[in-house]
Amino acid sequence: MTSKAPCPQGESLQVFKGTFIHATHTSPMETLTPLILGVNRTGKIVFIENVDKEEELSQAWHFQKKNIRVLREREEFFIPGLVDTHIHASQYPNMGTCLDLPLLEWLVRYTFPVESKFKDPKFTEDVYTKLVKRTLRNGTTTACYFATIHTDSTLKLCSIIDNLGQRAFVGKVCMDLNDLFPEYKEKLCESVVETKRFVAELTGREYPLVKPIVTPRFVPSCSSELMQQLGSYASSEGLHIQSHISESRAEVELVKSLFPECKNYTDVYDRHSLLNDKTIMAHGVYLSNDELKVFQKKGAAISHCPNSNISLGSGLFDVRNALHHQVKIGLGTDVSGGYSPSVLNAMRAAIDVTKILGFQSSNYERLTYQEIFRLATLGGSQGDDRNMVEVYVAGKKVVPFPNA
Amino acid sequence: MTSKAPCPQGESLQVFKGTFIHATHTSPMETLTPLILGVNRTGKIVFIENVDKEEELSQAWHFQKKNIRVLREREEFFIPGLVDTHIHASQYPNMGTCLDLPLLEWLVRYTFPVESKFKDPKFTEDVYTKLVKRTLRNGTTTACYFATIHTDSTLKLCSIIDNLGQRAFVGKVCMDLNDLFPEYKEKLCESVVETKRFVAELTGREYPLVKPIVTPRFVPSCSSELMQQLGSYASSEGLHIQSHISESRAEVELVKSLFPECKNYTDVYDRHSLLNDKTIMAHGVYLSNDELKVFQKKGAAISHCPNSNISLGSGLFDVRNALHHQVKIGLGTDVSGGYSPSVLNAMRAAIDVTKILGFQSSNYERLTYQEIFRLATLGGSQGDDRNMVEVYVAGKKVVPFPNA
Ligand SMILES: [Zn+2]
Ligand SMILES: [Zn+2]
Repeated sequence: MTSKAPCPQGESLQVFKGTFIHATHTSPMETLTPLILGVNRTGKIVFIENVDKEEELSQAWHFQKKNIRVLREREEFFIPGLVDTHIHASQYPNMGTCLDLPLLEWLVRYTFPVESKFKDPKFTEDVYTKLVKRTLRNGTTTACYFATIHTDSTLKLCSIIDNLGQRAFVGKVCMDLNDLFPEYKEKLCESVVETKRFVAELTGREYPLVKPIVTPRFVPSCSSELMQQLGSYASSEGLHIQSHISESRAEVELVKSLFPECKNYTDVYDRHSLLNDKTIMAHGVYLSNDELKVFQKKGAAISHCPNSNISLGSGLFDVRNALHHQVKIGLGTDVSGGYSPSVLNAMRAAIDVTKILGFQSSNYERLTYQEIFRLATLGGSQGDDRNMVEVYVAGKKVVPFPNA
Repeated sequence: MTSKAPCPQGESLQVFKGTFIHATHTSPMETLTPLILGVNRTGKIVFIENVDKEEELSQAWHFQKKNIRVLREREEFFIPGLVDTHIHASQYPNMGTCLDLPLLEWLVRYTFPVESKFKDPKFTEDVYTKLVKRTLRNGTTTACYFATIHTDSTLKLCSIIDNLGQRAFVGKVCMDLNDLFPEYKEKLCESVVETKRFVAELTGREYPLVKPIVTPRFVPSCSSELMQQLGSYASSEGLHIQSHISESRAEVELVKSLFPECKNYTDVYDRHSLLNDKTIMAHGVYLSNDELKVFQKKGAAISHCPNSNISLGSGLFDVRNALHHQVKIGLGTDVSGGYSPSVLNAMRAAIDVTKILGFQSSNYERLTYQEIFRLATLGGSQGDDRNMVEVYVAGKKVVPFPNA
């Protein structure tokens, strides 16, 4: 039985058969085998059933058995698409290099200079095409991208993603403060106007899979006025929001000095209307339990970027504690603070982090491999409701392919 | 100028031109560019010179310029072969799996069972062929292998390595204690007799690149008598020795309880004549400064296996402190405690470990990328003196290609 009544006339289906592995809210990893699955022309799953229904389905949906793509047993299997919840498309040229400095120095020395180059349309097209092809090749079917402050260049990224068929949230970066690299910043009003232009143009293009996300870089790069205006705008339009929080100790101290009237880093975003159930914040390494409670209450999510956290020497994020606080968590590659564009690498690095926390703290409950798998798939898809396909297996409703 | 006087008649040379990157005792990474290098039929470097000597060399050595292999600038470069100073050839079937338990439980549950299978010659040939091809593909030109307790199977490994052209030290594993998995152990006398048979047979075969190494598994698997006899034998024959030391906290406690009369883990090996300048010990995570001083005094080396130390939840080895104690250190993959057979992965994991120690301790002097490169090349070649080729660049003696 499927979520739609079969309506097979004229439908051209792709049909697959084999082992399916997925994550659900009740089970971090479940192996369903063997199943048969049909996908229609628009990419929607129209049935997923036990293989003994093959005959029946082929008659109802008019597909020929010889056209079924059958996976090799024990060698091939299906998983949901991987979700990269935090990646800087514009830092791809630096990937795998420039990792010898901590966050704040790294931004000024390596990152702002490379992001500045995206005012050049040729550079933009070349880099973004390579990057999106690469992430797709690595199994990233959905990504939350940071681009740069350049609106047209960011729109180019959107058209490349649409063209290559990835699902994405894309952010034009907003930043009106940058004393240490003044060539790379915007004026307050420009940042807001350009964000609105970006959202309007992208929405007008009606790409089925590419959506805008409001993107203040992080607190030290944004004036209070900019954050307030972006927060109000995102709320009034119901837009998603992404930024960074509590990545390194020095950054946390800096934010404390910039906003002494705020309780903590989380409170800064919260007071500027940037923390809600459409928000995803990268890192969160140094969030206190009080701050995690605010995340839970607001429904805001965290992108755990373990490769970046190690590579930039930022710290080790305690996923278990955040999960205990019922905060939504996905994985991010954070290219180029992370040196790999692959979510599989992020999974391995997340395993490393939980193992290290395991032997460094007594009675620490490490994440299992299965839980890491869930973070990389279902975890990253939370908050992207449009993305959920209701599917029934043997008459029972499940949420197996959040990114299908 | 070269270490040998040119003697070109009849020599058939391979000649290469491009950027050379190497490590020396005074510089962790040096880029020499552009150079021209000639290798003779036996694989020895016969000249390495600045490219302006090309004409002169081609006349002296009778090679044609069109036959020079020229590397693409900025895309290709030469490095010394990578040295894997600790890898269990026999654990290859488990690689990438079975990493959910700490060391002592992991041995009993996963490792001894797979090692037991190598009494089967067909299994032996299949696994060892795949493994050696894989490590060569990953750039490992020299490796220190643990095989199993099975002599003939271990000799088969040696013939595969010789056939595929890798340099290696190969150990038949010795262990006469194994209460928790009694199917996989030897009798004391058998272990010693078989070790001697292994060494005699391998030596008799006169493989140019494959040498035996005396291999007591680790203290908990060996009786005092076995260790003493292996120690005396290795000393009398001048053989290399490999084993494990101070990998996990539970193991250190176990050794303390087994040898209460010894000062520490290092002292156990030392009292059994197993610690000298031909010894390489894997891990050393929990070695005290007193123990490191003994390593330095004896000239014994440590194989740092960072992937394994994280994956088995053992701990983080402090390379900087060991280097301060002037202990010789190389990198090891420790397949299958480590999930990757590539020394490049070991380099990345070593970077992770030093970065984590960097942000977890104040004033910690992290290893640089260049120092990690040296560990993986020159570091691992220390103690393998037969391996050194004296080379002169522009009339100055250097030690550029310890594994050439
Ligand atoms: Zn980021
Ligand atoms: Zn080992």
